[in-house]
Amino acid sequence: MKAIQELGERAQTASRALRASTGAQRNEALAAMAEALSARSGGILAANEQDLKAAAENGMTVSLQDRLRLTGARVQGMRQGILEVMEEKDPLGLVLDQSARPNGLRVERVSVPLGVIALIYEARPNVTADAAALCLKSGNAVILRGGKEAIHSNTAIADTLRQAVASTGLPADCVQLVADTSRESAAALMRANGLVDVLIPRGGAGLIRTVVEQASVPVIETGVGVCHVYVDKAADAEMGLNIIENAKTSRPSVCNAIETILVHGDIAAAFLPALAARLAKHPVELRCDEAALAILKNDPNAVPAAEDDWAAEYGELILAVKVVADIDGALAHLRAYSTRHSEAIVTGDEDAAARFLREVDAAAVYVNASTRFTDGGEFGYGAEIGISTQRLHARGPLGLRELTSYKYLIRGEGQIR
Amino acid sequence: MKAIQELGERAQTASRALRASTGAQRNEALAAMAEALSARSGGILAANEQDLKAAAENGMTVSLQDRLRLTGARVQGMRQGILEVMEEKDPLGLVLDQSARPNGLRVERVSVPLGVIALIYEARPNVTADAAALCLKSGNAVILRGGKEAIHSNTAIADTLRQAVASTGLPADCVQLVADTSRESAAALMRANGLVDVLIPRGGAGLIRTVVEQASVPVIETGVGVCHVYVDKAADAEMGLNIIENAKTSRPSVCNAIETILVHGDIAAAFLPALAARLAKHPVELRCDEAALAILKNDPNAVPAAEDDWAAEYGELILAVKVVADIDGALAHLRAYSTRHSEAIVTGDEDAAARFLREVDAAAVYVNASTRFTDGGEFGYGAEIGISTQRLHARGPLGLRELTSYKYLIRGEGQIR
Repeated sequence: MKAIQELGERAQTASRALRASTGAQRNEALAAMAEALSARSGGILAANEQDLKAAAENGMTVSLQDRLRLTGARVQGMRQGILEVMEEKDPLGLVLDQSARPNGLRVERVSVPLGVIALIYEARPNVTADAAALCLKSGNAVILRGGKEAIHSNTAIADTLRQAVASTGLPADCVQLVADTSRESAAALMRANGLVDVLIPRGGAGLIRTVVEQASVPVIETGVGVCHVYVDKAADAEMGLNIIENAKTSRPSVCNAIETILVHGDIAAAFLPALAARLAKHPVELRCDEAALAILKNDPNAVPAAEDDWAAEYGELILAVKVVADIDGALAHLRAYSTRHSEAIVTGDEDAAARFLREVDAAAVYVNASTRFTDGGEFGYGAEIGISTQRLHARGPLGLRELTSYKYLIRGEGQIR
Repeated sequence: MKAIQELGERAQTASRALRASTGAQRNEALAAMAEALSARSGGILAANEQDLKAAAENGMTVSLQDRLRLTGARVQGMRQGILEVMEEKDPLGLVLDQSARPNGLRVERVSVPLGVIALIYEARPNVTADAAALCLKSGNAVILRGGKEAIHSNTAIADTLRQAVASTGLPADCVQLVADTSRESAAALMRANGLVDVLIPRGGAGLIRTVVEQASVPVIETGVGVCHVYVDKAADAEMGLNIIENAKTSRPSVCNAIETILVHGDIAAAFLPALAARLAKHPVELRCDEAALAILKNDPNAVPAAEDDWAAEYGELILAVKVVADIDGALAHLRAYSTRHSEAIVTGDEDAAARFLREVDAAAVYVNASTRFTDGGEFGYGAEIGISTQRLHARGPLGLRELTSYKYLIRGEGQIR
C-alpha cells in the first residue's frame, strides 16, 4: 500500500534524526508536546465531540463511549503523562556492559532505539499521546494506527503533537498517524518489513491474534489477560477476600483484573460462602464448577460454569470459580488456561509460595498481593505502552527500557583475527 | 502437520521439566552429552559417510561437502564445545533487578528460559550438537530441523544426545530432531504458535527471507552480513591494509567477513594500488566503481562493479570497492546497503571515529579493528547459536544470556490497589 510505504519511509528518516538527537532535545520536544495539548485542548475536545456523535449514532455501548470520551481533565491527564515521561531517566546511550579483551579490544554494549515502532490500537484516544511520548523519549519514530471510531480525536491530538515536535527542530514525522483506518492499512503495516522495526498491537484478543497470524515484521504481543488467584489451604481468608475483591472489581475491564479463582478443596466450604457474601454488593456473577456450586447452591449469584468459562476474559463483573484438590491441581489448571499475564497465590505456607513462584510461567507471579499491580508505574519503572505476554524481547510492562535495543561498539588499534 | 504438532507438545512437556531443573542437573546432562559423542564417534562418522556419499552422487560442491564432512577431530571439537558451554555461568535464576515499593511489595525480575526454541539450519552437522548444548544449558527444549543433505549425521548426533540426556534423568525430548526434511515440516514449525516460543533460522539469505515472510511464531533473524570497512582520510594505511586483508580473506564464507570497502577520495590514489598489491597473493577480485577503476585500471584483478555488487554477500574472494568523497559519503552508502551486521572504520581522527560509532546502525560497529571479531567468544560471552541482525530481543551474538527471558516475582502481605 503506497500510503503506508510513504509513511514508513518518512518514519525511517525521522528515526535517523532521533538517533542523532540528544536527551535534552527529546525532552524539549516532550515539553512542547505537553504544552501544546493544553493550548489546543478546545480543538481536541471539539474533534472528540464529532467522534462521540458518530459513536452514539452507530449504537456504540455506553462503556465504549466512556473510553472514547475526552474531557478537559482527561486532556490535562495526557499532558501530565507526557511530563512524567519527560522526567524519566534517558534510556539511550547507557553502557549496559563493557570489557577489555586480552587482545586489547574494548567492547561496549550501549542502548539504542528500536527504530520505527508501529502501534495498532482501539478506542482510547489518550493512547495516541501516551505512546507518542514513550516512543519519542526512547528515540523511536512512531506510526500510530488507531481505530475508526476515534479518528477525529486522534487526528487532532497527532496534529498537535507533530507541530509541537517540529517547533523544537526535530522532524514532525517522529509522530505519524495513519489517516486510513481500513483493515488494509493495518495489514500493510504488518507486512512493512524494512520500514517498521517493531509492531505492537494493543487491543482485544481478536486484534492480537490477527496481528500474530499475519505480521511479517517483528511483533510484541500484548495484553490478553486471563488472570487467576489461587487461594491455598494455608491462606489467611480475610486476605484472600480482599485480594479477590480488589483484583476482580476495582477495574474489571483491564488486562490485570482476574477472571477465575481456584480454591483449595479443604477450605472451599468455609471460604466460598464468605466470598459470595463479600462480592454480593457489586454484584459479581459466580460461574462455578460442580464442587463450588454444591457449596454455593443457594447463592443467587452462583450459576454453573461451562467449559469455555475457564478460557474467558470477561472484562466485567463475572468470576469463574473452581475447587482444586491442592496446589498441584491449581498448577495444572494454570498450565492449561493461563495466558501468562499475571497469576497470584494467597498462602501462609512458604513452601507453597516458593513452588508457585518457581513453577508458574507468567509475566508476573504474585504471593499475597493483587494482580492489579502488574503495571510499569506500580513496579517502579514508569509509564508503559502495553503489557507483553510473550517471552521474546520483553515480558510484562513495556516501558522506556523495553523500547530500546543495543549495539556493540568495539575500539581497537588495528587488531585482526 | 501432525508430526510437528506432536514434536511441539513433547517439547513443551520437556520444557516444563527443564524449567524445574537445577543448574547442576543441566550440567550433568551436558557432561553426559559430551561423553556420549566421544563414545559413539564411530557410529556418527559412519552416518556422515552416508551423507557424503549421497552428496557426491548429487553433485554437491566441494566447499559444501567440506562443511558437511565430519572427522574424528571434528567430533572431538563438538564434544569440547559442549564442555565449554557446561563451564559457563548458569544464565537462569539471576535476579536482574529488584526493588521494595513504597506499599511494601517486593518486586524481583528473574531470568527464566525462553521455552521451546526451534532452529532451522542448513549443511553443517556440528550445529546439531552446538545448538543442543546452548539450549539445554539455558533451560530451553530445542527442536532441530536440519537439512536433508545432513540427515544421517544429524540423526546419529541427535540420538546420541537424547540418550545421554535421558540417562541423567531429564527428558530425552529436551533435544528433538525433525526427521522429515521437507519444506512442509519447516513451514509447519513456522506456524506452530503455542508450541514453538522462538524460531531461529540459520542459513542463507533465501532461508531467512522465507522464515521472516511466513512465520507466525516469534523469530530472531540471523546472519546475513554485507559488512564494510571504511578507510578514512586520516587512516594509518598499513593498518587499513591489514584489517581489510584479514576481514576479507581469513574466512570469506562467514557472515562477519567483509564484502565492500569504502575509501576516502583524498587517499584512494595512494591506498588502492597498495591494497591491490596486498590482495594479489590470494588473489581477491576487485569489483570497482568508476573512480576506483580509474586508479586500478592496469590491475589484473580489477573489474567494473555493477549495481548489484553493492548488495552482494559474496562469501568468496571478491571485494567491492568504492571511492567516497568523505565520511558523509561512507555513512550514506551504509544507510543504503548495510545489513546491520558489522561495520568498521579505519581512522586516526577521533571525531570521525566518534561519529561513525554514533551514526552507524549495526549490531557491531568497529574503530580500527577487523569485523571478524563479531563472535560471542571474541566479545567474552562464550558460544553463540547465531548472530542476530534484528533489533528486537537481542542484537549480535546469541549466547546463553540471549536465550533467556525473565519474569517478575512479587511478594506482598495482602496489598491491594
